[in-house]
Amino acid sequence: MSTRAGIVVTGTEVLTGRIQDRNGPWIADRLLELGVELAHVTICGDRPRDLTAALRFLSDTGIDLIITSGGLGPTADDLTVQTVAEFCGRELVLDTDLEATIATILRSLMRRYPDADFEAVMAANRKQALVPAGAAVLAPVGTAPGVVVPATAAGAPTVVVLPGPPRELQAMWPAALATASVQQAIAARTHYRQQTVRMFGLPESNLADCLREAERSIAGFERLEITTCLRRGELEIVTRYEPDAPGAADAYTALVELLSTRHPREVFSTDGSLIDEQVAALLAGRTVATAESCTAGLLAARLTEVPGSSAYVTGGVVSYSNAAKTELLGVDAGLIEEHGAVSEPVAQAMATGALRRFDADTAIAITGIAGPTGGSPDKPVGTVCFTAALADGRCLTRTVRLPGDRADVRERSTTVALHLLRRVLGEKATGDAAAR
Amino acid sequence: MSTRAGIVVTGTEVLTGRIQDRNGPWIADRLLELGVELAHVTICGDRPRDLTAALRFLSDTGIDLIITSGGLGPTADDLTVQTVAEFCGRELVLDTDLEATIATILRSLMRRYPDADFEAVMAANRKQALVPAGAAVLAPVGTAPGVVVPATAAGAPTVVVLPGPPRELQAMWPAALATASVQQAIAARTHYRQQTVRMFGLPESNLADCLREAERSIAGFERLEITTCLRRGELEIVTRYEPDAPGAADAYTALVELLSTRHPREVFSTDGSLIDEQVAALLAGRTVATAESCTAGLLAARLTEVPGSSAYVTGGVVSYSNAAKTELLGVDAGLIEEHGAVSEPVAQAMATGALRRFDADTAIAITGIAGPTGGSPDKPVGTVCFTAALADGRCLTRTVRLPGDRADVRERSTTVALHLLRRVLGEKATGDAAAR
Repeated sequence: MSTRAGIVVTGTEVLTGRIQDRNGPWIADRLLELGVELAHVTICGDRPRDLTAALRFLSDTGIDLIITSGGLGPTADDLTVQTVAEFCGRELVLDTDLEATIATILRSLMRRYPDADFEAVMAANRKQALVPAGAAVLAPVGTAPGVVVPATAAGAPTVVVLPGPPRELQAMWPAALATASVQQAIAARTHYRQQTVRMFGLPESNLADCLREAERSIAGFERLEITTCLRRGELEIVTRYEPDAPGAADAYTALVELLSTRHPREVFSTDGSLIDEQVAALLAGRTVATAESCTAGLLAARLTEVPGSSAYVTGGVVSYSNAAKTELLGVDAGLIEEHGAVSEPVAQAMATGALRRFDADTAIAITGIAGPTGGSPDKPVGTVCFTAALADGRCLTRTVRLPGDRADVRERSTTVALHLLRRVLGEKATGDAAAR
Repeated sequence: MSTRAGIVVTGTEVLTGRIQDRNGPWIADRLLELGVELAHVTICGDRPRDLTAALRFLSDTGIDLIITSGGLGPTADDLTVQTVAEFCGRELVLDTDLEATIATILRSLMRRYPDADFEAVMAANRKQALVPAGAAVLAPVGTAPGVVVPATAAGAPTVVVLPGPPRELQAMWPAALATASVQQAIAARTHYRQQTVRMFGLPESNLADCLREAERSIAGFERLEITTCLRRGELEIVTRYEPDAPGAADAYTALVELLSTRHPREVFSTDGSLIDEQVAALLAGRTVATAESCTAGLLAARLTEVPGSSAYVTGGVVSYSNAAKTELLGVDAGLIEEHGAVSEPVAQAMATGALRRFDADTAIAITGIAGPTGGSPDKPVGTVCFTAALADGRCLTRTVRLPGDRADVRERSTTVALHLLRRVLGEKATGDAAAR
């Protein structure tokens, strides 16, 4: 038996996409860790009728636990607590302790606004102290308290009502989880293990083939719940299984073995690590410089997303114009004239220039045609040349044709560049330069 | 009477938050423009039972139009078309023309993978040519076609089935909209006009004040449906109204007038144009170079998001290390020692260096502390210094403290930089250098 949960995100600004919902994904992660299966996330505006419909939907599909976010503020369109109370068939009652707590918080907040009318503000906020009868109150992190409404005999599941601001919601989560109602709702949950394999350079259909083979050949394969996803030019294979189910862990080991045997070059991560993390680890103790044309700084920006990357990223040149390639990176103007700015010799010269100009031991160069114009029959839009070079002379150069629009080509180029860096930096460790 | 729509986003990777959904917000915007009211967005995994439940929920709440995204791929867990067909009570039939179209696309894609087995790939992709009887086929943008399934006499609404990759979904939308089924489903919609004002450098509460004044002073204000939103450090004020309603257009004109009068420096766009577009227009005929420390290429990347930007972006330096600032941009090492790398004198020297090294007439420099570490009491995390400099000597330098985490600080820095570029480039035109 398993436990299923549903999330209801409320807020017109989220529904209309002007604010991106960060609560759904965050709660989804927490549920996954707990072993609670998330069935649905629904988003609706600040209309009680739509919120009721979403609650009814989740309740009718047999959900054990509903978590709502948003609509707990003092204004008239903040109606979540009231709507949930009605849905669960519970009266709203004034919690005087909670009212006193909110008053204390507001008094402290309002010190900054000496002219504000405390009584008026308290009147607006009094509704935040109205809670469904029998509900557990979750102490406010901002000014809005949360509530946990226990499941009812009439069939309504346990409902956890949390505030919209992610900081408040996240801080309140442990208290919600600790309530007797939530513990009871998730008592039957299944414990899962989740593991991730990442591949690069394989078409999705070849992976599908490989998974069909796995289905035929691996005993216990049906115990694995596999999700595959193409992201940033990489394939992500996420597998979830019950570690205690007979044969499940062995089936997963066999699956990883099969993927690694069939596609040894393409499988780059079997422990869930990202290419960014792997490259960061490989760069420890080194210095890296970038030379970018079509990506125009995206790779340098991606390398420095990692806090602490200043230890090994020394800098980079965005050599968008040919003059910049020549002046800043020392690329021979004749080389550009002879081969074109998008060519392997120019990529190599850019990498060499970056090594020299930044006095780095590792360099990566990208030059390509991101589009929408600038393509030719020989070098269509999406043609990108890469060189990863080390100060000791090791060097890898590749030309690829990337699909998609300008933004796709630019983003995927950064992924290709990271994989090239991984290969050139990994050569020393594995001694397989010749094979590659 | 109005038309209501619902969106079903499918995909376990979206449900579990591993991929952020970009389709819901994008479709929400399109529906808003059309005058179709969005009631619910629901997200479910790749389980037919959950997808069916979501379709049932939306259908039962009286939705006129359902739009699904995702689950159209060749793999076994891509089940949307089949599930929608069952929900609508329609058989799946093989569309041989579509099969041929997909084969042509695949043949071309597979040139990149000479070792791949075309027949195996086609077998996996054949299911993408199965469409519900009576549905309109939307030609593939990637390899997956979409379908529009007409409303049924039994009460199922029109269902538009679109692919998950945003680029494919967006490219397919106009064709979906043009189908007879969708036109019929949205025939009863209200026609709206939607216009956008953008502001920079104003606290949200000051905007709220201004809108309260507008409510008191502008006749017909109640006919305007206004949503405000803080995004990338800018305020976006989106107003929707029925252009034929008496006084609505005049009220909107008065609102824009009021905002522009009260906050002349902060209102930078009344025609919806983005700061990126404005800066691109101002840079026409010029050459610009960047010098970036904490943003590490994000600004150069943002400037070059615009196709055709190679006409004016010559290049940039990512001077992450102090040595790079000195070597590549000619910043005096003594200056860094005296004032620190994050200081106005260093930002100015970086901009001057960029002008000189790239022989550009416009330069923008950014140096700051993105965090999470590196802050001090004097210069906390989020402190960022900017200089925009022109070759004729005009120059603006600013230090700001930006809120948020490392990614927020870096992204907002690019916005501040663009606004500084706009100011320094706009000075000549308006002749108000002294006032600024």
